Amino acid sequence: MLVLRRTLSTAISYAAKPLISVDLNRSPTEQLIPLHNRWHPDIPSVISVRRNDVFRIECVDWTGGQIGNNDSADDVKNVDLTRIHYLSGPIEVEGASPGDILVVDILDVGPLPSSMWGFTGIFDKKNGGGFLSDIYPNACKAIWDFSGIYATSRHIKNVRFAGLTHPGIIGCAPSHELLSRWNKREQDLINRCTHSHHQYSVFANPPIEKGACLGRLKFEDNKSKWKEIATQGARTIPPREHGGNTDIKNISRGSRAYLPVYVNGAKLSLGDIHFSQGDGEIAFCGAIEMSGYVDLSVDIIKDGMSRLSINNPLIQPGPIEPRYSNYLTFQGISVDDKDKQYFLDATLAYRQACLSAIRYLKLFGYSEEQVYCLLSAAPIEGRIGSIVDIPNACCTLSLPIDIFSFDIRPQSATQIDQNIDRGQLAKTTS
Amino acid sequence: MLVLRRTLSTAISYAAKPLISVDLNRSPTEQLIPLHNRWHPDIPSVISVRRNDVFRIECVDWTGGQIGNNDSADDVKNVDLTRIHYLSGPIEVEGASPGDILVVDILDVGPLPSSMWGFTGIFDKKNGGGFLSDIYPNACKAIWDFSGIYATSRHIKNVRFAGLTHPGIIGCAPSHELLSRWNKREQDLINRCTHSHHQYSVFANPPIEKGACLGRLKFEDNKSKWKEIATQGARTIPPREHGGNTDIKNISRGSRAYLPVYVNGAKLSLGDIHFSQGDGEIAFCGAIEMSGYVDLSVDIIKDGMSRLSINNPLIQPGPIEPRYSNYLTFQGISVDDKDKQYFLDATLAYRQACLSAIRYLKLFGYSEEQVYCLLSAAPIEGRIGSIVDIPNACCTLSLPIDIFSFDIRPQSATQIDQNIDRGQLAKTTS
Amino acid sequence: MLVLRRTLSTAISYAAKPLISVDLNRSPTEQLIPLHNRWHPDIPSVISVRRNDVFRIECVDWTGGQIGNNDSADDVKNVDLTRIHYLSGPIEVEGASPGDILVVDILDVGPLPSSMWGFTGIFDKKNGGGFLSDIYPNACKAIWDFSGIYATSRHIKNVRFAGLTHPGIIGCAPSHELLSRWNKREQDLINRCTHSHHQYSVFANPPIEKGACLGRLKFEDNKSKWKEIATQGARTIPPREHGGNTDIKNISRGSRAYLPVYVNGAKLSLGDIHFSQGDGEIAFCGAIEMSGYVDLSVDIIKDGMSRLSINNPLIQPGPIEPRYSNYLTFQGISVDDKDKQYFLDATLAYRQACLSAIRYLKLFGYSEEQVYCLLSAAPIEGRIGSIVDIPNACCTLSLPIDIFSFDIRPQSATQIDQNIDRGQLAKTTS
Amino acid sequence: MLVLRRTLSTAISYAAKPLISVDLNRSPTEQLIPLHNRWHPDIPSVISVRRNDVFRIECVDWTGGQIGNNDSADDVKNVDLTRIHYLSGPIEVEGASPGDILVVDILDVGPLPSSMWGFTGIFDKKNGGGFLSDIYPNACKAIWDFSGIYATSRHIKNVRFAGLTHPGIIGCAPSHELLSRWNKREQDLINRCTHSHHQYSVFANPPIEKGACLGRLKFEDNKSKWKEIATQGARTIPPREHGGNTDIKNISRGSRAYLPVYVNGAKLSLGDIHFSQGDGEIAFCGAIEMSGYVDLSVDIIKDGMSRLSINNPLIQPGPIEPRYSNYLTFQGISVDDKDKQYFLDATLAYRQACLSAIRYLKLFGYSEEQVYCLLSAAPIEGRIGSIVDIPNACCTLSLPIDIFSFDIRPQSATQIDQNIDRGQLAKTTS
Repeated sequence: MLVLRRTLSTAISYAAKPLISVDLNRSPTEQLIPLHNRWHPDIPSVISVRRNDVFRIECVDWTGGQIGNNDSADDVKNVDLTRIHYLSGPIEVEGASPGDILVVDILDVGPLPSSMWGFTGIFDKKNGGGFLSDIYPNACKAIWDFSGIYATSRHIKNVRFAGLTHPGIIGCAPSHELLSRWNKREQDLINRCTHSHHQYSVFANPPIEKGACLGRLKFEDNKSKWKEIATQGARTIPPREHGGNTDIKNISRGSRAYLPVYVNGAKLSLGDIHFSQGDGEIAFCGAIEMSGYVDLSVDIIKDGMSRLSINNPLIQPGPIEPRYSNYLTFQGISVDDKDKQYFLDATLAYRQACLSAIRYLKLFGYSEEQVYCLLSAAPIEGRIGSIVDIPNACCTLSLPIDIFSFDIRPQSATQIDQNIDRGQLAKTTS
Repeated sequence: MLVLRRTLSTAISYAAKPLISVDLNRSPTEQLIPLHNRWHPDIPSVISVRRNDVFRIECVDWTGGQIGNNDSADDVKNVDLTRIHYLSGPIEVEGASPGDILVVDILDVGPLPSSMWGFTGIFDKKNGGGFLSDIYPNACKAIWDFSGIYATSRHIKNVRFAGLTHPGIIGCAPSHELLSRWNKREQDLINRCTHSHHQYSVFANPPIEKGACLGRLKFEDNKSKWKEIATQGARTIPPREHGGNTDIKNISRGSRAYLPVYVNGAKLSLGDIHFSQGDGEIAFCGAIEMSGYVDLSVDIIKDGMSRLSINNPLIQPGPIEPRYSNYLTFQGISVDDKDKQYFLDATLAYRQACLSAIRYLKLFGYSEEQVYCLLSAAPIEGRIGSIVDIPNACCTLSLPIDIFSFDIRPQSATQIDQNIDRGQLAKTTS
Repeated sequence: MLVLRRTLSTAISYAAKPLISVDLNRSPTEQLIPLHNRWHPDIPSVISVRRNDVFRIECVDWTGGQIGNNDSADDVKNVDLTRIHYLSGPIEVEGASPGDILVVDILDVGPLPSSMWGFTGIFDKKNGGGFLSDIYPNACKAIWDFSGIYATSRHIKNVRFAGLTHPGIIGCAPSHELLSRWNKREQDLINRCTHSHHQYSVFANPPIEKGACLGRLKFEDNKSKWKEIATQGARTIPPREHGGNTDIKNISRGSRAYLPVYVNGAKLSLGDIHFSQGDGEIAFCGAIEMSGYVDLSVDIIKDGMSRLSINNPLIQPGPIEPRYSNYLTFQGISVDDKDKQYFLDATLAYRQACLSAIRYLKLFGYSEEQVYCLLSAAPIEGRIGSIVDIPNACCTLSLPIDIFSFDIRPQSATQIDQNIDRGQLAKTTS
Repeated sequence: MLVLRRTLSTAISYAAKPLISVDLNRSPTEQLIPLHNRWHPDIPSVISVRRNDVFRIECVDWTGGQIGNNDSADDVKNVDLTRIHYLSGPIEVEGASPGDILVVDILDVGPLPSSMWGFTGIFDKKNGGGFLSDIYPNACKAIWDFSGIYATSRHIKNVRFAGLTHPGIIGCAPSHELLSRWNKREQDLINRCTHSHHQYSVFANPPIEKGACLGRLKFEDNKSKWKEIATQGARTIPPREHGGNTDIKNISRGSRAYLPVYVNGAKLSLGDIHFSQGDGEIAFCGAIEMSGYVDLSVDIIKDGMSRLSINNPLIQPGPIEPRYSNYLTFQGISVDDKDKQYFLDATLAYRQACLSAIRYLKLFGYSEEQVYCLLSAAPIEGRIGSIVDIPNACCTLSLPIDIFSFDIRPQSATQIDQNIDRGQLAKTTS
């Protein structure tokens, strides 16, 4: 009789046995291998790996399950932003020392087979805000279903695209010194900004004890140490020189990251898995947010930071990014809607490009909020066209036209039946 | 307390619950949902699906586990080619009738998490043969390990590439009429070809009872029916007008196939999953053969064969094929090594292009058999350059140079240290 | 006897007979078909075309020949920025009216056969400035030679890349109303900005009579009209809502632009041809600047601005952009070198990404100024990674590694011989 | 006064002054720098170049002007195939010796500005024939007009694509020894093939004095030498081990060819410029044939043939090939229309794939002959899918769907109005 797989193998079935698993039926604070949601050098490592190990890490979605697969945006409106982002790690890398470069191969990224969906949210202007929340102040939500490599949404119809799946957050723990620089400069910003902001409820999020989750270190076990870290630990929203929440869509399947190391053992953490995202992630909760897995291997370049003059991460993107031939490119300049001229302001220029795209796609029967979500979630390219032609910066937003099931080019736009059902976003009930 | 995933979802977790599972610890003939290895309209369907269903199918490797993850090629030498290819299915598609086109979306393809490896074999000239078995007559084997999207081999070192993963075989069951045409024309060929062949042990494989596996239909249950099908059922090696073993590497993730339907319910079968393959699959067992899963959805174009003038499959390739910028392109013409001129013979021209590539890559320290395997397994492009310039066809083989960890361009070839360890293929022990 | 080309053709040999020719041996103000260097609705059209016409337009380089193909940067240091950009046009398009969209096909773009070279300049901080002129305040220059599709430079060695050739400037004339908005808002900015700037000598360039070149309208012919336009005409440096100097590198061969029309006849002008440019064009005179030709055809969408909700140009990029597989991606966040935190400042984030790239490439033996030029001129991708993760924007700069003749990946960087001759930029003599 | 271009340049304006010019108003036999249409080591060189020279070569179309830009196919029907292909050269490369590899950079390729059109012909079965001339025996012609990078045809409407422009022929002169091997083996084939062929009027074209054009060597000057070469010189139709008429579409802009050298000075010749071509060039005169220019530079690898184990050309394709995302892939197997089974016959399999594509595209209102021309001329990919699955080879033809101005995917095919005017090919008048 034939016996299947007479194996003499040394191959590691890392894919079948994740080094860190998550249980989506448990709270993020009650996972068997604890998660964390602050950056601090003293959060204890949960696992240890060696150079060239290949291993799988699972992650919960960034909110730790606060957002449901349903048709109400109440959960988005009321999201608790002190309880984010839930990260897997810290992972100790044997032999890594401050000043080294940790070479991380992102061998694969994907959703968990038991949870083939994700969400894109527009935050309420008073709780989170976003790039355009002065115009679109109300919480909304789109749920995306995954079928193999593709995402579709019942809330934004006639669109389908392949995931450029990536971890929104990856980075090593900061040193004490680096952490205090972060806290200082961000507090300085808060202190400087006494006016209110058009789009965001705050200017930065300083450390806060409330909502802190510190991995293996439990409040019950060491209250003073816990409080010390919780009151110092950097919040996870901004990307910083260690990487962190860069939300770079191209750290995708098959890419390689070179990450600075600041503490012994490197203490690598990651999470905030995105099925897809457009450059800028403009709706803030704008990627297709999901739980997922990342397959990794690690290596070390000793003293790499000085030898390679690297002070923040370097990335080599992978070979299987979805590549599109046909784009429609929108432009924006640094003049606002009231015709006020700003000086080489790329942020404003990109905002104007986004608004051009929203205005245009509305022609095809989408609501403005639907387009706002779509530009956040789909693989759009956001580029800095020119940044020296004083006083205007010019930014572009390039939309791959093949993600639509109909033709969005201008010649077709004049003929479109705008009464087609494009679905609608989930709204709040209150 | 926060509860993870308050779901109100209707999303189908097809990925977590395959419609057809395989158990790699059981023989291919003893799977819970039976497999089959012949094409015949009367092999009973094992499952039924409806239009727009999304589902996962698992498959064993084409040999049903005859080849092991080890360092001996004895299993390749002695492979039983009557016991192939083990296919998953037939899958009944409700509402499909002869003359329809079955639209099959290949939503994703990948290895099974518990079996992250594959093999490439050179068949013994006397048992299988291959494109170059007159020159390389002995069985050899390379094992490939998968790390996320990448494959590497301890038997062919300094090469790494992303999988262009695909099912080598997909197709609907033939009608009785089509099946008898197949059997007749292939037997005619066997009858015509009385000479022996340089490369292959036979010219075609007619139906054979030995080794037949007919899915739900067990010999014990209905001996006469079993014998009837086993003696008529077409062998699975050749691609035919229904598709079948086309080994087209581009039927990969995200692609769409339009398949002719010949029987009620379509009776779709698939298998022979390849992690990667070069155009031509020249070593015969030349792809990176593995067990794996395929995520599918199906739709029907009624009367599509006549309405669309389609008599054999049409494919729309997917959007995430690995794309390379840098190729080295070898040429071949239809003149053999003894300077004999053939007339527009593309098969010979491609053979000569393969030999040019082998001769060249040998410079870098690989054995000829290693290159033979590599050209079979890596994502090489095999093209028909010109097919009208009498008397010579010209074919090309384009090798992506970025799959090597060193520079294979000619300027570097003159400086290479040929004593570098490139590994060696598994050989036979006898 | 055989006669070549017995033609019965209606094909237009537009390529052999440009509609606007330039003579590089004449001053830009003395061309047979006059050029202009201001935006104003009353600058007279020089030629007239109809819908679907295919025609070639030649352009001088943006400075009108102020910069020479030599090894001194004195000309860059002393460039007269009132005498720019010399544009070809205005071209009247029959039937175009305010509110229409002019559809412009950029059928081809290239250098003039008699002038196969271009230049990249770093402006002196006191005359022009640039993105990094606080760090690199001195004028420098690199000359590029073109060989077919490729550029190389004696001033920046070991780099070669294919041109993503494009007109830096294309747009229709503004209406009087739009022009006065431009002038007003830019003057407002100048009035607001009373401090001096780190990088630029001025904040904006208001209209100025000196240096004005107004096409067919000569000072001698109508002094009052000439003075009126010269004192009102908008300067050409900033991109504005009509397009203009957008410096979008992807308006390249085979692309299509949809341009708003503000005056009867559209009055299309173009110029500032770039053999290649990186996103941002960071050195200001940073593209590979050259004289060249553009092949065009035009069409009109009547009332397109309102029907398509288009207030600024839309672009469909062309199909033959050089595509690279291998990039090295640098990151920057909106924290300056003194660790001061800015709020979602994409301009600063991109600057920091540029500085990371400069620091890194210096490892390989280039001077910082050489890299500054290279990042301006080569086809780098400048992207907005995230623009919502308060307080940090994250921008990326992706460098195609295949443009170098050596391996710039980090693993190689630790082994590089830094004494290799990479050439040096042309400097000033004084 | 400003003087344009104060040049101190050493840049070579090769583009303005071709090393070999052609005059399209003169017969191919009366060009100032003579052309030739046979391969022979004793045809004298017309120019000489050195390593690293950059130079432009102009070429007439392959027929030397026999085919006109008009609406009759009479010229195709009556083409004189003894008077082809008119090649530019031989070019002597100083320092090249037998056994060397000539490295040729194809820096650019394009049409002549004065002749922006090309033709695709179906040969009459009795004069030339072609891949499908048993089915389409009559001469037809399509004229293509070039607008920048794009081609369109009044004879095949609603199609537009960017040129993948290339020389169909490039190669060095054979040695006497190699030439006699060519003549011997091709004559042997003619001797063996006593039956008539379905598609071609002959099996090979032996040397023939009639129509010979031998460059600088004029009949009048040395009758005996002329006759010797004319009766020995190899015809130019087949590609051979020196390269020659390979018709590989990817030897395009920016590519590099490594060519074997057989005689002192290499004696490089080239011609048969194609604006575009599909893999296989199936209609024989199937590319978009044109006159044009090629920009080249050359280098030498001494003893490269043995050092690099190169016996026929190697190519590195260039970086600006048009890349398409969306293909429709047709399949063919080696079974003919009468259901006769052939053994691994890739030529037949590709033929069947072509017929599948023709049958399908006919749905959209094209004639079969129009599709036959289109598949020859457009950038289709012809691949060898599998070449080992006995007895069937499987070849694929992948058609980029974005070259059509309408949607050719199957879902659209069922709704198409077949009465749309797609134009029609030029036919013969007799």
